[in-house]
Formats: sequence, structure tokens, C-alpha cells
Amino acid sequence: MTLSPDTPNRQWILNRRPQGDVRPDDFDLVVGTLPELTDGDVLVRTLFFGYDASQRIWLTDDGGYMDPIMPGEPMRCGGIGQVVASQNPAYQPGQIVEGFMAWQDYAVMRADGPMPLRHLPDAPYPLSWNLGVFGVGGLTAYFGVTDGLKVKAGDTVVISAATGATGSLACQIAKLLGARVIGIAGGPDKCRWIVEHAGCDAAIDYQNEDVGARLAELVPGGVDAYFDNVGGDMLDTLFLHMAPKGRILICGAMSQGYTDVKVQGPTNYMRICTHQLTVQGILLFFYADEIPAAAMQLGQWVQEGRIHVEENRHEGFEKAPELLPTMFTGKAPGKLVLHVADPA
Amino acid sequence: MTLSPDTPNRQWILNRRPQGDVRPDDFDLVVGTLPELTDGDVLVRTLFFGYDASQRIWLTDDGGYMDPIMPGEPMRCGGIGQVVASQNPAYQPGQIVEGFMAWQDYAVMRADGPMPLRHLPDAPYPLSWNLGVFGVGGLTAYFGVTDGLKVKAGDTVVISAATGATGSLACQIAKLLGARVIGIAGGPDKCRWIVEHAGCDAAIDYQNEDVGARLAELVPGGVDAYFDNVGGDMLDTLFLHMAPKGRILICGAMSQGYTDVKVQGPTNYMRICTHQLTVQGILLFFYADEIPAAAMQLGQWVQEGRIHVEENRHEGFEKAPELLPTMFTGKAPGKLVLHVADPA
Repeated sequence: MTLSPDTPNRQWILNRRPQGDVRPDDFDLVVGTLPELTDGDVLVRTLFFGYDASQRIWLTDDGGYMDPIMPGEPMRCGGIGQVVASQNPAYQPGQIVEGFMAWQDYAVMRADGPMPLRHLPDAPYPLSWNLGVFGVGGLTAYFGVTDGLKVKAGDTVVISAATGATGSLACQIAKLLGARVIGIAGGPDKCRWIVEHAGCDAAIDYQNEDVGARLAELVPGGVDAYFDNVGGDMLDTLFLHMAPKGRILICGAMSQGYTDVKVQGPTNYMRICTHQLTVQGILLFFYADEIPAAAMQLGQWVQEGRIHVEENRHEGFEKAPELLPTMFTGKAPGKLVLHVADPA
Repeated sequence: MTLSPDTPNRQWILNRRPQGDVRPDDFDLVVGTLPELTDGDVLVRTLFFGYDASQRIWLTDDGGYMDPIMPGEPMRCGGIGQVVASQNPAYQPGQIVEGFMAWQDYAVMRADGPMPLRHLPDAPYPLSWNLGVFGVGGLTAYFGVTDGLKVKAGDTVVISAATGATGSLACQIAKLLGARVIGIAGGPDKCRWIVEHAGCDAAIDYQNEDVGARLAELVPGGVDAYFDNVGGDMLDTLFLHMAPKGRILICGAMSQGYTDVKVQGPTNYMRICTHQLTVQGILLFFYADEIPAAAMQLGQWVQEGRIHVEENRHEGFEKAPELLPTMFTGKAPGKLVLHVADPA
């Protein structure tokens, strides 16, 4: 590939801070040129954009756990790319990497961010799986279940947003560790899917069932561990059904739409006190050193056919903005990825 | 003491479920007779009534972590009494015991409740200290600081309601373990008291200062451990000032008045996720086996003069109802106790 300062670089630029739900027209398509590299920079051609609900948090004034994306900047995403130029000895042209990228054809990455670009191995599975089962979702599920919730054989574990990129893997990992797994999802099709494909022993359809009544029926002795991806009323309901000394993992609050860093607080949180619950957070940044070992374990499970990988794959750079709102409106199961180019 | 079925037994009976703040006229004084004992029962003459904010929770329809007190029943309290009759071989007349009692001259206790009556040792300190430093407050502070928050030397610990029976001891225990302790209290007098008597290195006056601004100034690197007795807006503010991997102990939510088991939920709780916080509960029931060792450690500290014990003592059975609302309206520092009789 020959690059010159005139090589066009398509970019989806944030044109305004979204109010309420994010909309495709919050972004403008512009064609820029390639940036200059300075010492330490790596220029990558983007190949895949990954979608994550927390992208909406980065669009708030606060940004949550990362700097907010400012109007005029390209939209940040997790992505996979190929190095095309480098002023960093750790990255050579041609190498395939994964990390924080942006909705543009070419992105300059610094190696000193909170999560440095990760070299991807040659592997007998699709490259895009590095955004899903071997990416943020799979790793968050792995550390959340093993370290955050400390799931062990015999536990009854409840997981919300169980068809999601993280939830569907959390269900399977908990099951592999010997737990009884109850998934929560919206609608009969998704509930069938999590039992058939995500290792759930039972499913609760929050759109058509009374979650509290179903929990009382399925887990009369109380839930040992709850992997919370949704927050809101669901978290409040779960607080009422936790076993004494139960554990809750706060992974997300998708029901709140992430339009603000403040969300609906759980009015039943005093159960933490009266039932001596432990509530723990999970953010992958804190596990950077342990990622290689976790990815190896996930790889082994996948290779052995013990983890089902579901991908929700779309095609074409021009689709980037329109897919983002679907994270909050009930997309199909599995990791949402957009394929934008092939490696050279 | 000679007892007969005709011995009068004064009782403060709940006449209605309180709505909003508890009021003295939610209780009626009646004179009943002594109950019949059945197998396992212990009859005690009450000597001291202890006050605890969670008594208000027991007055809700739900009751929180114990059965709700029903209209027509005497008001439950932690108390100290002397055994006057027993059909339980573990308890002999004349022995002094501590445990759940009620606002009445004579109370029948069962030995099989969640917290059995505890024999009190002969000791060179006031009997009523068994309700404070050696009772629920002191033990909750001890387990909360040592096990819940796992405070260690060098930690910066923030404690709210720092003049309270629990808070004032939590401050001192955290200090003894080598932490830097910042107490939060209402008004300059209480703030002075927690620095002079409760081991605080600094105080924040929530009535006259901006708690968030003061925390930013005093703990720019973030709070390692927060012992929360108040909930509400204070908990929300603390969430914004916790260090990564910080720990929060949920001990109470006094700011909410305990008029309902549902309380204001923290809208900033996603900090649990983004800062990978651990939020843990504390309820003494879970530590029953460890109480003797903890009481011994507290006793040693008291004997060595390393813990200052503050008692807020009142006199007279007739005062029982009027003291309860003062738990929520800024009573003086220390454990609130009512002395109602002396041992025979």
C-alpha cells in the first residue's frame, strides 16, 4: 500500500454532543488527510470497528472512565487495524493490532494510552473475534466471573443482558466453572437462544415475565452471584433476591441508556448491609497484566468447542453511525462488529 | 426479688405504624402482667435500653433485617437485663445478659433467636458500655473497619456520622490501625469533638462546608476506604472521590430516616464499575462466632486508654419513646442509653 500525505482518510466526526439517545446524524462524514506521525506514533489502517455500549458514555460531557469525545473529533471505538507506518519500534508495518481506534480509514495511535495496542496472533479463527470473545467482552466476562464474582461450582449465578457480547460469554464461563446459570433477556427468541447457545440452565424473559416472581420460583434460597449489565429496576429487583453474603458485579447499566454518567440509583441497596452483600466493579484497565493468560484460557475453551462464539457482523464504513443506537434497542445476540477493510 | 403472676410489668406498646418520622405518641404505656415461661425461655428484668437508628427500620412494614414490630407489641431494643427466672439451663437467675429486649420491665427472651443472649462479664467499667463500645456499635465498628474495609496503615479513611456510637469508634479503630482518618459531622462543635476525642486527623462539617470540595482538598488522590453511616447525597459525593480500587462499607443510611426500607439510591454508583470499587455490607449477625475475640481486643484498647468511650446516658423508663426520634435529629456524641433499673 502506498501512502502519501494526499491519501484520503474518511472520518465520522461528532458534530454535536448527543442529547438523550445517540442518533446517526450526531456524526458527519468528512474526508481528511493523513496525519503527521511524531515519535512513538503508530498509523493503522482500520479493518473492524467494534461496538460497545460504553461508547455512549464517552459521548457525555464527563466521558465516564475515559476522556469525553469532543465535537469535531472522530468517534472512538475498539477496533482492529493493520500497521501502515510506525515511529514506534514495538510496531512494524503489516502487523495486525487491536485497541482503541476511531471511525476513520486511518488512525494514529499512541503506544502510551491506558490500553496499548495489542498485537494479534495468527490464529485459526476470524480476525474480528479479537473484538468479541478475545476482546473487551470476552475478557470482561472472564475477569468478572472469575475474579469479580469468584464463581465456583454449585453457585447459582444470574446474568442480565445475557445475549450481549459480554453477557453471553459470562453465562458460558460461569457454566464451565460448574455454576447453575440463569440468564435474563428480552423476548422468547432471545430466551431460547441463551438456553440453546449460551449455556443457561434457565431463562427469564423480562419483557413478558415478572422477574422477581420468577427468581423467587427458580432460586428460593437466593442468588449467590449476579452479573449486572443493565442496572435500573432490574438491579433493584435482584437486590431483593440475593442470598446472604451474595456477590454482585457491576459491569454496566444499559437500561439507563448511558446518556449521563449519573444513573438511577438502586433504592434497595441497603440489602448490601442487611444481607452483607459484596458489590464489586469490573473495568478491564485494571487487569492489563492478566489479559494474556485470560486470552489463552478463552482460546483453549473456544478451540475445545466449549464456548459458542456469536458474532453480529455488518459490512461497510458508511454504516458506522447507524449501528451505534442499536446497542440500546435490542440488537441480535453476540458481538456487534463492522467490517470496513481487509488487511493488505 | 419475689415475682408472682401479679407483678406489674410496664410496657411501651407500639400503637400504630409510624408514618414518616417516628413520634413519642406512636407508643402507649400499658401495665401488663408477667408472661408464662415455656421450655427454653429466659425472663429478664431490664436494666438498660440501648438506642440504635435501625430500630426505626423494625417499625416499617418490612422490618428490614428482622421481623417488623407489629402494633400491639412492645418496642424492641438492644438491652441489658438480669435473669430473674429461667427454663433454659444456660441462663441462671442473677446473671447479667445483653441482647434483644424490649421497652418493658420484664422481657421473655428465647435462646434460639438470631443473636442469643450474651452473658456479660464482671468488669471494671460501667455495665452500659456493653451496649456501646462492647455492644452493637463497637463491634460493628470493629468488624466494619477490620474485615469489611480491611483498613491498613497508610490508608485514608473517611467516616460519616463520626460522632455516632458506631462512627466514633470506627474513627478510633481506623486510627489505631495506622490510617489517616477524616470524620464527617454536623456543625463546628461536633467537628471539634471528633478531632479531640475520636482520633480524627481532620473533620468535615457537612452543615457548613461543601463536602466534595473539602474531600478534593484533603484527599486529592482519592479516598481508600469510606465507612458510610448516612447514605443519601453524602454517599453520592463520596463515590466521586474514591480512589481506584477503593472500598466502601455500607453500615447505615441515617440521612434517609429509615422510614422505608427503600432509600435514595446512589446515582453515581457506576463509579463501582469505572473505578473498580468494592462495596461491602456489615451486619453483626454474620460475625456471631467472632464476637468474643473482637470484644477482647476492644476491651484491651479501652483498658490501655487507647479508645475514648462516650456515653449519652438518660434516666427513667418513662423516657423511652421520647429519646428515639433524637437518633435522627442530631443528638450529642456517643451511645444513647436509657437507664431503667439497677441489678438486684
